[in-house]
Amino acid sequence: MLFQKVAVIGVGLIGGSFALALKQAKACGHVVGAGRNPANMKLALERGSIDSIESDAARAVEDADLVLVSTPVGQFAKVFQSINSSLKPGAIITDAGSTKRDVVKAARKALKKKISQFVPAHPIAGAEKSGAAAASAELFRGKRVVITPLPENSEQAVERVNRAWSTCGARTSQMSPEQHDEVFATVSHLPHLLAFALVHEVASRENSAELFSFAAGGFRDFTRIASSHPEMWRDICVANRDRLAGELSRYSKKLAEVKKLLEGRDAAALEELFREAREAREEWLKNTWSGRKS
Amino acid sequence: MLFQKVAVIGVGLIGGSFALALKQAKACGHVVGAGRNPANMKLALERGSIDSIESDAARAVEDADLVLVSTPVGQFAKVFQSINSSLKPGAIITDAGSTKRDVVKAARKALKKKISQFVPAHPIAGAEKSGAAAASAELFRGKRVVITPLPENSEQAVERVNRAWSTCGARTSQMSPEQHDEVFATVSHLPHLLAFALVHEVASRENSAELFSFAAGGFRDFTRIASSHPEMWRDICVANRDRLAGELSRYSKKLAEVKKLLEGRDAAALEELFREAREAREEWLKNTWSGRKS
Repeated sequence: MLFQKVAVIGVGLIGGSFALALKQAKACGHVVGAGRNPANMKLALERGSIDSIESDAARAVEDADLVLVSTPVGQFAKVFQSINSSLKPGAIITDAGSTKRDVVKAARKALKKKISQFVPAHPIAGAEKSGAAAASAELFRGKRVVITPLPENSEQAVERVNRAWSTCGARTSQMSPEQHDEVFATVSHLPHLLAFALVHEVASRENSAELFSFAAGGFRDFTRIASSHPEMWRDICVANRDRLAGELSRYSKKLAEVKKLLEGRDAAALEELFREAREAREEWLKNTWSGRKS
Repeated sequence: MLFQKVAVIGVGLIGGSFALALKQAKACGHVVGAGRNPANMKLALERGSIDSIESDAARAVEDADLVLVSTPVGQFAKVFQSINSSLKPGAIITDAGSTKRDVVKAARKALKKKISQFVPAHPIAGAEKSGAAAASAELFRGKRVVITPLPENSEQAVERVNRAWSTCGARTSQMSPEQHDEVFATVSHLPHLLAFALVHEVASRENSAELFSFAAGGFRDFTRIASSHPEMWRDICVANRDRLAGELSRYSKKLAEVKKLLEGRDAAALEELFREAREAREEWLKNTWSGRKS
């Protein structure tokens, strides 16, 4: 058994799935959950994601060997502050935040000397579904988890977090918090923002009902991530706003180039751009997705 | 039987599926196919989409009661010119072009007085797959087909085209070619361009391999349409370039607004935008997609 007692702060899709996966692997004893929404906590208990509910995070982490912070990132500062004094010596904290620089900053401020116990992580396993009802022991299977160790972390602490996520079926890798935020601004945060912006743009037109009625499968898949959790994505965007603003500038520049090709009726250049994009995507699918379902 | 002889010019995903669907419904006698790619034509024959192959479009349309033009739109002008003199009196022509103003213009120029025989249409049933191998009799089932009748069309001609597409299982509706190009610039052409642009942007970076290795399901679905047929989308974008450039301007303005919210750290406004987008999308899914698979 890896951990006797695990505390999950925020038992939504990610927290609930983490708990279910550890339990299924018999890698932990008791799992206690804490969260804001009583109905959601009750559901997590009924589904067996957690074994007990604590009303506040400070109580939940008492005696815990492992703490997962999996609330929306906007609440992380408050959570770190509230758990600081009741953390057991040697307890390991990890998280599931989609941004890392802000999380590390909040953790340093709240945990002070205990920062060595915090090993930040980001499971790449989002879904437009959220809440305890969507949790599944299989959510992380074959998915990547990026661990962004801190200079203060001991090798053992990093290894324990690594094993926790590996036990959930994830493929782990490591990079710095700065590099993490740069990579995910490009491949995750930007596409989400683009999808939200497109749906909002169409919805705000006078003839939006007619427009939507002719939108088909391409529009549906392109905008799937615009059904993502608004509060979670607000926090991600605010936390990574500098990188994301840079990505938006870069992408807008690209769109301006494309617009020039359109206006210049440059069919050959447009076709080349489309072909290169298609080839790059097919290559990516072949390398990354072959044999995997989702 | 609706049509004794049907000629399909361009037997790819759309042309092949149209032929298969009419045959399955026993709505036509002989189907002759014409196209540029001998291997693809042979495949269409083997799969039973077509009953015979003609090397050129002019020969194919001889004696045909119905002609479907389903090549990439960039070839339409040439096709119309080549079939004009061998069209049987009373034969009906329809098409599957994703743009309509340019198609109508090309048809008027080539068909001259026979323009009354041409009833333009656009089946909303794209897929990132292309070619005769991807054709299916079920492709149009439950999908929309927009018919954009011309003032010269007789009621009977429009009705025959309407019945052809309905027989394939499609839900037909009518609008003007101008209105069509405006609607589809927004809900189809723009998202395709945005997806192509994003993949191209990422692929053109020095660290693209690393970036792609962390791209997950959200990126995959957002960019699915960037695997679309480059030549087809080149033609669509060039044909509808004025509307599409307008859409790009509008969307870029939206992105500039979003960037301002990010830079101003306006969490509340970002959350509101995300929430409104999510609600609009959920409403659309409920109204349009409930009970339908794709």
